[in-house]
Amino acid sequence: MRVVLVATRNPLNVGAAARAMSNFGFSRLRVVNPYGTAFRDARSAVGAAELLTHAEEHTNVAEAVADCALVVGTTTARHRELQHPLRRLETGARVIRKQLGSGCVAVLFGSEKRGLSNEDLSHCHWLLHIPSREEHMSMNLGQAVAVCLYELVRDTKAEPEKEKSQLAAAGEVERITVALLDALRASGYLNPGSAAAAEEKVRRLVRRLNLRAGDAEVWLGMLRQILWKLRSER
Amino acid sequence: MRVVLVATRNPLNVGAAARAMSNFGFSRLRVVNPYGTAFRDARSAVGAAELLTHAEEHTNVAEAVADCALVVGTTTARHRELQHPLRRLETGARVIRKQLGSGCVAVLFGSEKRGLSNEDLSHCHWLLHIPSREEHMSMNLGQAVAVCLYELVRDTKAEPEKEKSQLAAAGEVERITVALLDALRASGYLNPGSAAAAEEKVRRLVRRLNLRAGDAEVWLGMLRQILWKLRSER
Repeated sequence: MRVVLVATRNPLNVGAAARAMSNFGFSRLRVVNPYGTAFRDARSAVGAAELLTHAEEHTNVAEAVADCALVVGTTTARHRELQHPLRRLETGARVIRKQLGSGCVAVLFGSEKRGLSNEDLSHCHWLLHIPSREEHMSMNLGQAVAVCLYELVRDTKAEPEKEKSQLAAAGEVERITVALLDALRASGYLNPGSAAAAEEKVRRLVRRLNLRAGDAEVWLGMLRQILWKLRSER
Repeated sequence: MRVVLVATRNPLNVGAAARAMSNFGFSRLRVVNPYGTAFRDARSAVGAAELLTHAEEHTNVAEAVADCALVVGTTTARHRELQHPLRRLETGARVIRKQLGSGCVAVLFGSEKRGLSNEDLSHCHWLLHIPSREEHMSMNLGQAVAVCLYELVRDTKAEPEKEKSQLAAAGEVERITVALLDALRASGYLNPGSAAAAEEKVRRLVRRLNLRAGDAEVWLGMLRQILWKLRSER
């Protein structure tokens, strides 16, 4: 995977792109005719200095993508006049991931002001757009790179919730319920001979807390202490 | 949904966060004790000036999240010492989307240097982390906000590929194949009485182009013109 920045104006944006690449595990940066030759010193590239040092500089897009089997341009436009197939990021990333299994992919980002030129686009197999809001589509370059790379590395089969397994066991929850009921009776909130319906209400109330295993112990300790105090005051 | 920036140091990052919010259709920004009071003028907030103007300023986290039913903190840490359940962005976003159907959600982002403090975290129900690389987890604040918001608005049932339907019809592809074969024979590439095997090879070659409907017509026109020229030269 190669990230290709074409005619980027602000060196800080080159740095921001490099940082996002490093965050998400990409290392091959190519720049085509950047404004300002000092882009390698970009201050916003926290932690990505080495990546910037090894960035390749090219004078035209053809050269920058020569070794890639798939060339994808990014655009904010989503109009019919485009001469290219257009994919939303969610769909396009899937195609890119597949292609990365068998060969190089270049993803091109145009300049902050004008995006990619028609000449740049003619080197692309298809175009990618980030699903931003119709009224404000134009994203900051560094943020656009970060979002695209995130979509490429995100876990497509995001793990189903495992937090449930950390929940307190029913027995522990019941001990808390009993301690709470005792405390409620001891405090006079419930009558000593309170109806089963009232008890059940409290039981359901405690279940809805979805107590975690580690917390249940703490709650039980607190309740027992309160209960001890309540009883010793009698 | 409220984006809450806590103790942000660089006003440009507040601006970048605001821009990403506008890109992805979020409007309620809250800032807690930002450094520099001039954050509303942030230059990087292209297109998000109004959003910045309406940003609410608070002096503590409790106040900034008071009306939210779910409070989520963002963190780069993914260690056991954390006192909170930790979710990857892909999973956490699903929970947030669900909650947004019934009430307010606050997502907190800490300062560039230190992230959220333990005091800030104590207001959170659980924590979110972006799946960045172990060796370089710390993201730029504006990019982190953009990635989180993108995950919240991304199409979770990304449309299956529809490009297939734009492919040229088999009849059109066959017309191209015939024209190509004629041209190959006329040019001497194939013998006039060439074997069926050679023809089939060409046929498969053309099929592998996966020609799009609009392009097929153009290719046919070009081939026919070449064929006409080849034949008129005889």
